[in-house]
Amino acid sequence: MKNSIGREIPQSVDGIDNIVPYQGEWAIVNSIKSGSSFKAPQALKVKPVDHVKVCDNLEECLDKLELHDGMTISFHHHMRGGDGTIVPVIESLAKRGLKDITLASSSLTGAHEPLVPYVEDGTITRIFTSGCRGKLGKAVSAGKLKKVAVFHSHGGRARAIEAGRIKIDVSFISAAAADEAGNATGSWGKSACGSLGYAMIDSEYSRQVVVVTDNLVEYPCLPSSIKQKDVDYVVKIDSIGDPEKIAGDTTRITKNPMDLRIADLAAEAMIKLGYVKNGFSFQCGAGGASLAVARFICDYMRKKDIKGGFLLGGITSVMTDMLEEGLFDLAFDVQSFDAAVSKSIYGNEKHIEISASQYANPLNCDCMTHKLDTVVLAALEIDTDFNVNVLVGSDGNIRGASGGHSDTAAGASLTVLVAPSIRGRLPIVKKNIHTVVTPGASVDLLVTEKGICINPLRQDLKDKLEGSGLPIRDINELAEEVERICGKPEEPEFEDKVVAVVEYRDGSIIDVIRKVKS
Amino acid sequence: MKNSIGREIPQSVDGIDNIVPYQGEWAIVNSIKSGSSFKAPQALKVKPVDHVKVCDNLEECLDKLELHDGMTISFHHHMRGGDGTIVPVIESLAKRGLKDITLASSSLTGAHEPLVPYVEDGTITRIFTSGCRGKLGKAVSAGKLKKVAVFHSHGGRARAIEAGRIKIDVSFISAAAADEAGNATGSWGKSACGSLGYAMIDSEYSRQVVVVTDNLVEYPCLPSSIKQKDVDYVVKIDSIGDPEKIAGDTTRITKNPMDLRIADLAAEAMIKLGYVKNGFSFQCGAGGASLAVARFICDYMRKKDIKGGFLLGGITSVMTDMLEEGLFDLAFDVQSFDAAVSKSIYGNEKHIEISASQYANPLNCDCMTHKLDTVVLAALEIDTDFNVNVLVGSDGNIRGASGGHSDTAAGASLTVLVAPSIRGRLPIVKKNIHTVVTPGASVDLLVTEKGICINPLRQDLKDKLEGSGLPIRDINELAEEVERICGKPEEPEFEDKVVAVVEYRDGSIIDVIRKVKS
Repeated sequence: MKNSIGREIPQSVDGIDNIVPYQGEWAIVNSIKSGSSFKAPQALKVKPVDHVKVCDNLEECLDKLELHDGMTISFHHHMRGGDGTIVPVIESLAKRGLKDITLASSSLTGAHEPLVPYVEDGTITRIFTSGCRGKLGKAVSAGKLKKVAVFHSHGGRARAIEAGRIKIDVSFISAAAADEAGNATGSWGKSACGSLGYAMIDSEYSRQVVVVTDNLVEYPCLPSSIKQKDVDYVVKIDSIGDPEKIAGDTTRITKNPMDLRIADLAAEAMIKLGYVKNGFSFQCGAGGASLAVARFICDYMRKKDIKGGFLLGGITSVMTDMLEEGLFDLAFDVQSFDAAVSKSIYGNEKHIEISASQYANPLNCDCMTHKLDTVVLAALEIDTDFNVNVLVGSDGNIRGASGGHSDTAAGASLTVLVAPSIRGRLPIVKKNIHTVVTPGASVDLLVTEKGICINPLRQDLKDKLEGSGLPIRDINELAEEVERICGKPEEPEFEDKVVAVVEYRDGSIIDVIRKVKS
Repeated sequence: MKNSIGREIPQSVDGIDNIVPYQGEWAIVNSIKSGSSFKAPQALKVKPVDHVKVCDNLEECLDKLELHDGMTISFHHHMRGGDGTIVPVIESLAKRGLKDITLASSSLTGAHEPLVPYVEDGTITRIFTSGCRGKLGKAVSAGKLKKVAVFHSHGGRARAIEAGRIKIDVSFISAAAADEAGNATGSWGKSACGSLGYAMIDSEYSRQVVVVTDNLVEYPCLPSSIKQKDVDYVVKIDSIGDPEKIAGDTTRITKNPMDLRIADLAAEAMIKLGYVKNGFSFQCGAGGASLAVARFICDYMRKKDIKGGFLLGGITSVMTDMLEEGLFDLAFDVQSFDAAVSKSIYGNEKHIEISASQYANPLNCDCMTHKLDTVVLAALEIDTDFNVNVLVGSDGNIRGASGGHSDTAAGASLTVLVAPSIRGRLPIVKKNIHTVVTPGASVDLLVTEKGICINPLRQDLKDKLEGSGLPIRDINELAEEVERICGKPEEPEFEDKVVAVVEYRDGSIIDVIRKVKS
């Protein structure tokens, strides 16, 4: 069957109950009556008064936990490329002979390539994640995982956990500081990573919660991003990872002239459309072009004495600088994109840590992405319906992340995609794309070095930008031009076998990912 | 049948499912395996993106809510004697003709006497509360409530809500400041009342949540004691009550010589027993004698250069002064006993707001009363088994509150009761008491003006205090002496009819309250 954006969705996928094809951004949200149903219940964690939570090492803790084949274990990815928790825990579980584990991490990065052997030997047979990269992404695309993987957005993951679609047996939460009762934070300590926004939901809904820390501090650990009421055990280890590797390459402002041209056009468009005004809220991706947009917007705000409302994200040092300068009132932070941000989240009361549910869960009573005025996002590929792929590379292998892309795109009043029309020799704007993560209905502008494409659904924007002097392009013409320049690129071939489904934030299936022919 | 402290408990009570007689402080806690069962599920409050929470007045909000006969509505009592929210809401519901309402308030005070007519006319037919006083207490004792009332401790209430024993249809949460999304606090604004600890659990578990405020502030209201994710509507009203009346008479330090003698003895005993030492944690009631103990303890701490760990409660200005002076490291605050405390909870990061579940719920993973070293508590009556009544007056009428009495008594390593042996001409220490709220097993010392009684369960304390020079008394001898002085007082007569049950914090029934013969 085809979903409402025309993607072919199998009626059943092994291991996925209740396949609901994507039916539009708000179809499911608007179909649920508030208060008429319930979230999954949380485990009752009554403890004897003499219960001691602290374990001297991971093995002692694993001895105490209830572990079994087929269980689901969860992690967060706030340490990103520097994560030092997931691999050692999986290694220990594998040594104990545990099999058929579902790995539910908020995302997976290059640091998790060592998991490939555990996929191959059946220790890990299913993955729930926002992203997957490198050799692990290739392994999933090659069909090495026994069960179908599920890719979710950050808001979608919170929804899935709250809905009981992801039932977690044990959550391992790495923290830069924690106390004996399990209160924990990422905001200070030698391995500070800032917000623990993704882990909050795990801590509330997992049947067993383990805080893993390299910095056991005096009670109480403040702020308590993770709360003692939810934590079963606290494990002291030598290192939860390398905070230097949180930022990676993606979070630096670009000097690439093409990126700068795109950023300049995007900022101009946002300004001319009247979105850059007192009180406006703003999010941008951590990619170079997105951050450059932020910089151009800031220049304009300074010049015009404009003060924004809140920043949301995905907070980078660029954004904490904006906060400190007073260009914006507040920052809501579900994930900090470099170690330096943790100082701000710890010390600046205007920099507020939020959970993934608060950030973007479409079934949350009042999530922040739904309050967002403007978002600037990157893309791997865009089709002529403005559908966006941020997950599958040109070779057909999984090498990206859904992240907050569809969450913010759906919520923001103005969603701006910034992408070159051609990357290397590969077309980025094209008639058909491998995989859709964010539906075109959520995208308002595509800004490329060759000009700006306006989603025909937004006639209001078209009217406003006409005669603005900005280079407006028809997306079909742009795709044709790109194809003329690049030629038809060699497309990867896929087998029928579905290796992963791409869940839209509301739990419907927006696309599937098939096995790459080897 | 008799429970384990010999109180007669009916096998069934109309409207109370599953009567479980009290079986000992830890019987139920120790019988539950962590993670083997679940809390009640929380309502899924998905909202359309254009949902507006703010209502201009209470009637507009009531129009939007789902209301029905037989529903349960909840309130908090942080405004205590100054509460201005419960009565107007009940009046409005009564005007709409709603009947058979269960009123689940964290407690009820003298401010709620105007509810009597609504009990008499069947608008309110059941009450869940920690306390009840004045004409409303008399009405309950006179059997005017159609269904049996349930008295719970503060921790027990949190447990009951989390367990789904109290299922709340609408929670009305008055707040001294709130924003359009429902983030709310008691810590600042013209009606500041400090902590909103009791309301937090309501906000999470109620099917519908209304924040009522006289101070609608710019988004976001910080701190967000109540969170936007839980709030359906925000109502602006003129006044949520009179903060001047929060303190009442109970929270001033006594000048009464007998109270001072009792306080002096209690402090001496605590010191000689070695509990007043670096890092110790401390809670005391808001009564005059209890606060005087705090003052004596402070004098000793200053002299000996002792620095305590955390203060817990029920926080009064006396305690915030101790915090500011540096005598204690931290204060955990579930309820602020006077308006002045709100400045501290707002401005001092060492003064931490906690929920009732965090405070004292025995089924919480790690509640604070279980970490408590010492507590000083008052009493209406004590029997020779050290059982304590804090709920029913000598005339047989309900005129007190369970509060955190049994919660802290069970949790603290040393529980000290401070009470005169005779009050007016009435015996306080006696062979039999009307009603048991806190079991004798939780009480370690009873300190009266005639000397100190040590619970025989605590031979260790007896050994330590022997030869200390403190006046140690046998509680049976003391009760006999008191009886000799007072004579046998005229006891009220009761009918068989049960008008209320007294739930122990774990949900078992520790006693029942019968109808006073008129």
